[in-house]
Amino acid sequence: MPRRRYSPPPLSTVSFEDGFWGARLKVNRTRGLEFQLAQLERVGALEALDQKPRPLKIPKGQWGGTTQMFWDSDVAKWLEAASYVLATHPDPALEAQVDQVIEALAKAQQEDGYLNTYFTAHAPDQRFTNERDWHELYCAGHLIEAAVAHYQATGKPSLLGVVERYVALLARVYGPGPNQKHGYPGHEEIELALLKLYRATNKREYLELASYFVDERGKQPYFFDSEARARGEDPSRYHFTNYEYSQAHLPVRQQDKVVGHAVRAMYLYSAMADLAGETHDPELLAACERLWQDLVSKRLYVTGGLGPSADNEGFTSDYDLPNETAYAETCASVGLVLWAKQMLEVTGEGHYADELENALYNNVLAGVALSGDRYFYDNVLQSRGNHHRWTWHPCPCCPPNVLRLLASLGSYVYGLGQGELAVHLYAQGEARLKLAGQSLTLRQQTQYPWDGVIQLSLELEQPTFFTLRLRVPGWCESAKLALNGREVGFVVRQGYISLERQWHSGDEVRLELAMPIERLHAHPAVRADVGQVALRRGPLVYCLESTDHQAALHQIVLPDDARLEARLEPELLGGVLVIQGSALAEDLQSWGDRLYRSAAPEQQPIPLRAIPYSTWDNREPGEMRVWIRSVANSRG
Amino acid sequence: MPRRRYSPPPLSTVSFEDGFWGARLKVNRTRGLEFQLAQLERVGALEALDQKPRPLKIPKGQWGGTTQMFWDSDVAKWLEAASYVLATHPDPALEAQVDQVIEALAKAQQEDGYLNTYFTAHAPDQRFTNERDWHELYCAGHLIEAAVAHYQATGKPSLLGVVERYVALLARVYGPGPNQKHGYPGHEEIELALLKLYRATNKREYLELASYFVDERGKQPYFFDSEARARGEDPSRYHFTNYEYSQAHLPVRQQDKVVGHAVRAMYLYSAMADLAGETHDPELLAACERLWQDLVSKRLYVTGGLGPSADNEGFTSDYDLPNETAYAETCASVGLVLWAKQMLEVTGEGHYADELENALYNNVLAGVALSGDRYFYDNVLQSRGNHHRWTWHPCPCCPPNVLRLLASLGSYVYGLGQGELAVHLYAQGEARLKLAGQSLTLRQQTQYPWDGVIQLSLELEQPTFFTLRLRVPGWCESAKLALNGREVGFVVRQGYISLERQWHSGDEVRLELAMPIERLHAHPAVRADVGQVALRRGPLVYCLESTDHQAALHQIVLPDDARLEARLEPELLGGVLVIQGSALAEDLQSWGDRLYRSAAPEQQPIPLRAIPYSTWDNREPGEMRVWIRSVANSRG
Repeated sequence: MPRRRYSPPPLSTVSFEDGFWGARLKVNRTRGLEFQLAQLERVGALEALDQKPRPLKIPKGQWGGTTQMFWDSDVAKWLEAASYVLATHPDPALEAQVDQVIEALAKAQQEDGYLNTYFTAHAPDQRFTNERDWHELYCAGHLIEAAVAHYQATGKPSLLGVVERYVALLARVYGPGPNQKHGYPGHEEIELALLKLYRATNKREYLELASYFVDERGKQPYFFDSEARARGEDPSRYHFTNYEYSQAHLPVRQQDKVVGHAVRAMYLYSAMADLAGETHDPELLAACERLWQDLVSKRLYVTGGLGPSADNEGFTSDYDLPNETAYAETCASVGLVLWAKQMLEVTGEGHYADELENALYNNVLAGVALSGDRYFYDNVLQSRGNHHRWTWHPCPCCPPNVLRLLASLGSYVYGLGQGELAVHLYAQGEARLKLAGQSLTLRQQTQYPWDGVIQLSLELEQPTFFTLRLRVPGWCESAKLALNGREVGFVVRQGYISLERQWHSGDEVRLELAMPIERLHAHPAVRADVGQVALRRGPLVYCLESTDHQAALHQIVLPDDARLEARLEPELLGGVLVIQGSALAEDLQSWGDRLYRSAAPEQQPIPLRAIPYSTWDNREPGEMRVWIRSVANSRG
Repeated sequence: MPRRRYSPPPLSTVSFEDGFWGARLKVNRTRGLEFQLAQLERVGALEALDQKPRPLKIPKGQWGGTTQMFWDSDVAKWLEAASYVLATHPDPALEAQVDQVIEALAKAQQEDGYLNTYFTAHAPDQRFTNERDWHELYCAGHLIEAAVAHYQATGKPSLLGVVERYVALLARVYGPGPNQKHGYPGHEEIELALLKLYRATNKREYLELASYFVDERGKQPYFFDSEARARGEDPSRYHFTNYEYSQAHLPVRQQDKVVGHAVRAMYLYSAMADLAGETHDPELLAACERLWQDLVSKRLYVTGGLGPSADNEGFTSDYDLPNETAYAETCASVGLVLWAKQMLEVTGEGHYADELENALYNNVLAGVALSGDRYFYDNVLQSRGNHHRWTWHPCPCCPPNVLRLLASLGSYVYGLGQGELAVHLYAQGEARLKLAGQSLTLRQQTQYPWDGVIQLSLELEQPTFFTLRLRVPGWCESAKLALNGREVGFVVRQGYISLERQWHSGDEVRLELAMPIERLHAHPAVRADVGQVALRRGPLVYCLESTDHQAALHQIVLPDDARLEARLEPELLGGVLVIQGSALAEDLQSWGDRLYRSAAPEQQPIPLRAIPYSTWDNREPGEMRVWIRSVANSRG
């Protein structure tokens, strides 16, 4: 196996202009970043860095009184996002705010390197005693990610130094030695963070600790059992019954079903894939591939959401994908994007980019309002009108997760490999890259995702031989390619067109991806979607909102032969392309008073208008529906 | 308005033979009666009559540790059922058992007449302090019903005397006087029981107390508020937020929506209708009619189930009738049967009998297994295979409720009015009636509900002029009538054919009710049923079980033009008529691995077999579904 086929270019070298992402990323780095910092301030998460025990600011009962246990991670995710913004849009005022938060964190660090403001303030004697339920290593992971991002953005070692001292402590506490805990986190996160730290510092001990956490996981006798006994608890009384909840039921190399808490699962698999790439480990990669196949063939919403159940915030059974009660946590889709990125970069297979793109454009983007300051935690695919974004949440993991993901979007667009440059995502903008020792500027002009035409132009210092790989998304059934104005033939392999040649400055490539409106059907085993279709165009899944319709959404039936057309609406929802056509709806007027009757209800034509799923709940509250009842033809 | 158009004949004069009801009633009075007594014994409900405080026998946590508060009512319902059985099938051994239980109850009665074994044993100082939440008057009501049944069956005043002493106490405690509590029960029941007691004893004070409880209900300031304050509680912190839960939000005469706990609602409305009849009260009857219309036009399952939500064990919003999570408590349908009987007897309108019959044959009967000793509390209309009858329940209200209803079924079949005899229900059997001073034997020969042919033969002491009214059920679109072998014309008014003539011994009437298989559609506002049909034939609603099908039930689609036929299966489920035909099912084989795709799934023909809803979950566990996906025609 290859070590890792692609690496992303430095974040600072990729820029977005106008267009779809340009607008959204601007909201993200302005309103989003500022608003979330204000929320962390408001709820007391920043103040808590001083580690003085104090009553919760969030009223008790709103989230069981344990909110602050995760606060370090929320602060860290904000720092990470802010660092990405500093990398792409230097801003001294923001940098000063970042420095201030880092200073508080540095002050909070204990003599021995320990850094968890919740435990130091509230339970100093309970450090490292309950990895199963608490979130020490999870918080540590986010601090590490923040430190790496900050270091790479600013070159300042301030947070990196703090974090490396903390990791040194963790490496003393956890490991295979006789006096070490043979443990691992209940909520995975630190593994993927340590791998980032390893790449940032080139210190192999970080890779080794990550590797230890990954491979120790799920071994018997279970660490979580012995840890519970040490606390005087009976491990058999564990709330979630077994360790599938945290993917610790089996050694990870033996796993083949995506189970348990969805965010935990995604973070673990992401680390597994990354580690497999870093260590040339085909066995570990094979486990990832099995898990991936399980997810995408049986347990993934059409929107890229995952983990249908609120009970375990995670997976249930195959094909169990209820729409109205979908949990589909925003963080889980962010996690899927992380995992898909690793799988893509390690293997170069385009189908990973397909799922990355799907999760990103649909479930992830739905997680934040167009205004940038209201958020979904759970992303239902159907609502009766009572599901809305809130301004904050007692467990505010999702908002800063989307914040940091969007702020780092530049690292998702391109992949640099051995003599090759892959374009994974299409977005109006520019990248200034280094390839084969040469500087290269690649410019994308496109209305994507509203339109499938992408114009690429290259600027090179001197003619250079390399392979340009252009992704042809899995949803695209017909593509055209032109090189310097001349149409050329091509084949798609592994989801990419490969153009291997001597490139010259001024070369232009035009890719045209057909983007018809599709009606998607779900596997017949998916109970919730049977007899219904979802509309997709390009990477965007669409939905109906009641504000656009004269009938309750469950009464709307879309005939298979109804003509649908895409139409750009520049004034709607910040400018979206809607899908419109004529559907049928059961007629209430002609039904009468009876609750049941033999005669079928009459149906009347009704105008249908679908909007991108990611933009729902940005207008007046009402019903929403992704899966639309379908019939074979318009005669009902 | 009429006082009350019909009264039932004494229970002992009506008998069932073989046929549908004969078989079921036999199981009910043998296995059912014996098994439930054994369960009451096993859980400690009988032992508890000694009123010694003792720990719960049911493990704590199984039902929050309050089980015993209702036990008197469960014992009473068993006594009531046993008394009905004694009326129709005298049995000295059973009578001795009954006497023994009554003796224990009599011993439990306090000096002042009080009789509630839970409060006497566990909270003697809390008598009559929390009618809102506790069940004192509810238990009293069931004791009264048992006493009336026992007295009417055996002529023994043993329990009646006990109960009358208790009621005398209640009449001192509750009432309009300055030193009385201006209260009413949280869980209605005693009102309808007092009306029975009034009819059994002809003592007007019982009617007056019933009337007081009914009309005091919902007046402001609320009794439940002042009662809570007297306990030192803040009434605004009431768990159910407002008194809709117990229909005490408004004076009953002003109510027009069926709300709150469904069993409570039915018991109240039943008493209201009964009282309206007894007291010639058109205003009260009008309230009943409004509530009835609300129920049947917006809040009733096709199976006669009601109260969709487990949260309040009751009603939610109009047209909210989810199938898989239907609460549809067996007791609520029993309550609907009670209410419908009152409405029918007061008004003589056949549409009340239609709903009575529907609830009886479907939701109520589903509440008990064919074996008579396993029970549903909640009656879903769709199951993934994890919903099954249990042998007992920590809150065992439903089993004895069905037990007593079925044991008293003889009082539902006929109505005796001014010079008229109505046949409300059709069932193989015989009634020895008194009409216009004459003895009359009416014999029904019928395979109903499997077949719509009913042969009635009359034996009379001497020719007698009276009106024989035969119900033509609302589901029947075509009927034929023959008198002594000659077809005769007729009209149906108020749901009945009226034959007003001089009747002679040996007269024979043959009624033939067409009983085609119907596909029922729900009002388009019923989200859960849209695009689906329910199969009904005669009074029986049908369902699919997975054991009869080669596809998951959600994959089955019934074309509107698919021919369905009824077929008697004598060996199946004790002998049922099944509905069979050919449907379509989405094909898993040809679908492949993908979770979503553009091409619609292929459909294959599949044999369809539906069984009566009441008989589901009597074979191997599996999926069940009442509402079947439908398409316009078999070409999909």
